[in-house]
Amino acid sequence: MKEKLEELKKRLALVSDLHNAEGVLSWDQQTYMPPRGAPARAEQLATLGRLAHEHFIADQVGALLNELADGAAKLDYASDEASLIRVTRRDYDKAKRVPPALVEEITRTTSIALEVWTQARAESNFKLFQPHLEKIIDLHIQLADCLGYSARIYDALLDQYEPEMTTAQVEAIFTPLRTELTALVQAIARKLDGVDDACLHREFDEQEQWDFGIAVMRQLGFDFDSGRQDKSVHPFTTGFGLGDTRITTRVDKHFMPAMLFGTIHETGHALYDMGYRPALDRSPLAGGASLGAHESQSRLWENVVGRSRGFWKYWFPRLREAFPAQLADRDAESFYRAINKVEPSFIRVEADEVTYSLHIMLRFEIENALVERKLKVADIPEAWNAKMKEYLGIVPPNDAQGCLQDIHWSIGSVGYFATYSLGSMFAVQLWEQAVRDAPTLPAQIERGDFAGLLGWLRGNLHTHGRKFTLDELARKITGEPLQARSYVAYLKNKYGEIYGV
Amino acid sequence: MKEKLEELKKRLALVSDLHNAEGVLSWDQQTYMPPRGAPARAEQLATLGRLAHEHFIADQVGALLNELADGAAKLDYASDEASLIRVTRRDYDKAKRVPPALVEEITRTTSIALEVWTQARAESNFKLFQPHLEKIIDLHIQLADCLGYSARIYDALLDQYEPEMTTAQVEAIFTPLRTELTALVQAIARKLDGVDDACLHREFDEQEQWDFGIAVMRQLGFDFDSGRQDKSVHPFTTGFGLGDTRITTRVDKHFMPAMLFGTIHETGHALYDMGYRPALDRSPLAGGASLGAHESQSRLWENVVGRSRGFWKYWFPRLREAFPAQLADRDAESFYRAINKVEPSFIRVEADEVTYSLHIMLRFEIENALVERKLKVADIPEAWNAKMKEYLGIVPPNDAQGCLQDIHWSIGSVGYFATYSLGSMFAVQLWEQAVRDAPTLPAQIERGDFAGLLGWLRGNLHTHGRKFTLDELARKITGEPLQARSYVAYLKNKYGEIYGV
Repeated sequence: MKEKLEELKKRLALVSDLHNAEGVLSWDQQTYMPPRGAPARAEQLATLGRLAHEHFIADQVGALLNELADGAAKLDYASDEASLIRVTRRDYDKAKRVPPALVEEITRTTSIALEVWTQARAESNFKLFQPHLEKIIDLHIQLADCLGYSARIYDALLDQYEPEMTTAQVEAIFTPLRTELTALVQAIARKLDGVDDACLHREFDEQEQWDFGIAVMRQLGFDFDSGRQDKSVHPFTTGFGLGDTRITTRVDKHFMPAMLFGTIHETGHALYDMGYRPALDRSPLAGGASLGAHESQSRLWENVVGRSRGFWKYWFPRLREAFPAQLADRDAESFYRAINKVEPSFIRVEADEVTYSLHIMLRFEIENALVERKLKVADIPEAWNAKMKEYLGIVPPNDAQGCLQDIHWSIGSVGYFATYSLGSMFAVQLWEQAVRDAPTLPAQIERGDFAGLLGWLRGNLHTHGRKFTLDELARKITGEPLQARSYVAYLKNKYGEIYGV
Repeated sequence: MKEKLEELKKRLALVSDLHNAEGVLSWDQQTYMPPRGAPARAEQLATLGRLAHEHFIADQVGALLNELADGAAKLDYASDEASLIRVTRRDYDKAKRVPPALVEEITRTTSIALEVWTQARAESNFKLFQPHLEKIIDLHIQLADCLGYSARIYDALLDQYEPEMTTAQVEAIFTPLRTELTALVQAIARKLDGVDDACLHREFDEQEQWDFGIAVMRQLGFDFDSGRQDKSVHPFTTGFGLGDTRITTRVDKHFMPAMLFGTIHETGHALYDMGYRPALDRSPLAGGASLGAHESQSRLWENVVGRSRGFWKYWFPRLREAFPAQLADRDAESFYRAINKVEPSFIRVEADEVTYSLHIMLRFEIENALVERKLKVADIPEAWNAKMKEYLGIVPPNDAQGCLQDIHWSIGSVGYFATYSLGSMFAVQLWEQAVRDAPTLPAQIERGDFAGLLGWLRGNLHTHGRKFTLDELARKITGEPLQARSYVAYLKNKYGEIYGV
């Protein structure tokens, strides 16, 4: 068994190297590549992606997995070896089920659709995008059929981003959550003037913002010997092995939170990527468990920690030192309130903690209806606006601020959105457990000491890499399945106090 | 034939994509990669290099080359098709002749040797490096035996960097050149005080230097939509396809020419890489013909143009505008003299135009003696110092400033050095032809107009990519083989005038 396992690891390491190389090329594409480099870069990325895929789905990999199956069954489920074989099998079977012709068709369709979507959004012209989205939905129905599912067609698509999570599980979580959130939003909507965030819109020097962001990253535990931050239009986190994790950010001179919380958010992702056990490197177990698990880390640091009163007890004096003029008339408390302003708005990525998940549910429901053929693509704008009205009490003035706002569908990310909210929930569930395990964590954070929290996350979550599913992690770490109860309580407490509702 | 040629091109495009991906990873390694990214990056580069090699030496490529041979023989030698088959055949045969085990052994040996060399140079301790260099020389003798040669063992090593150039050809050029240069150096050595370059050592703001360098690049014709400049410890040029060519530079606050002429030098390389016909992209014909051909472009722009009186007629007023305090007491003429100061010195990379090739000959002769087993590695320091005394009239005070100064041997670049001087010569040979063809070029340059020269180089040299050898290019463009006559005349005229000798 040992020999076959080594052979499997060697093959997977090659695939991992190719994916890491793709990662470097993509990072460069979004940070430093000159514009005319795009066509050649597309060829390079396509070649690397194809080779990685070919080497991964090679018959020899399948044969090794078969030969190792009996031995793996005898091993501890949580062991590196059993986990490697289990997770690789899962990935392998999925990769084998999709015909290369369908992958190519999706790639071709979405590369055109992305261009069209960009134009359609600029012109707020849904009709322009509609035929492309129709094709994308058709192709994803085919994709789901290839991938297979037992209960709901959406299961197959969701599973790509959140392994083994089902549509029914998400609905069981989302349905009561929606009731709670809409009630909270309605209560706050009557008191919108309760928070003044004017100070965030003053002019903040870009270099000063950058320097402050770097100082925060460093203190949260981001290791600059193993990573870096650069600028890009759309912030993201990427990594190319354990010693090289990179985040990007964007700086808005007239809206300081864009960079500050963006940086903390991506730092959360990066700390996760920097934290798996070195033994898992260059294997399918390297990295984070799922998109939901990853988002739990970005949101835990951004929201649960970064938008907490305790965090700013330490940081506000430092922020005011960096920006004395802009913050002269504020204190930690009024700043805390400003960065937690709640207001129903049209754009998901700008939404506050309370309204955010309602944006997600809307998308999740529409995607489900689309792939179940209960909603036509042509009827998306109407459905979108009706749900906006129902959940947030507002209707977008146009489709650019409505159903055309997100890039996801144009690039073929159907089944993705729910993971954002699952991550938000899991963040709070983890935080509660962390504080149960280490009751002094909040006090440490008030002192600007984040090592305790990072250490807890490292030991309980990060260390496992991709070994477990989100639900397995929830049970393992918190003793219960993923749940929204803690999340709802957290939002009600925090925003009830801020808004007096 | 058409179908087989398409099949060959498709296979070569894949190899080209992998090499381009390697290029991006190497560029990143030297510019932005955090230190702990190194081990994983080494794995990624090794994997890409191995896959590129495997795909290139695949039996199918050999079979296609065989099948295409008859057809190619009937085509015009200079056609894209005949050239592709000819150059690919040459590369393929070389790649096939070297056993993978030897390549691995060289890689393993040099990766250790590089570390040891770094330490040995820091401590000026040749004995430390000696056993590693002995092994490297042994391995390169084996490599030469695998590659094959008819006259001299050094031919096989030289051929890796300067295809089809022979040791005898280089010697026939170097021997009279050495006589001329040593005489010129001796004449100038008696008048060293004739040039005052103190102004170059004043303090020049780093950002101002950077901005001036970018302005020069732009005016020379560097297209920033198809490339960029970044900082690195060792300046270099790289490219990943026709639309993405990058250079790096380093900025020394207390020696302004380091960046200024470094930038012009790398811009010369980059303009070459940006200039091949698009039809040659993603093939072995993309890029420059050889290291010598490449160096002709960097040195033409850096020295023949960038250190000319005419160039500074245009640029000096602009430079003084950027640095009014530092250059207040200088004019274009005294600045021209300063940047052309000649002085025998120990370090090759800091050498002036006149002494530079003597540094090269010394290395070329020592390398030859080593692989012909006429010189022992242990005796290098003595041989080095004796030649320094003979050619430049000075003896290094230690090996760090002598035989340990260059990185080349430690990384296995044996056979490389001559190409620097071949490039310097070819630069002047090209320049003379360019002025014969377009007599107004010098006047254009005095006006800051470089489009004429770039256009001439594009049309006569760059367009061909890797189709021809250096000697073929010399004959094709200038009507005679590569020669040192023009180079000697150029140096005698220019420096005879400056130093009155």
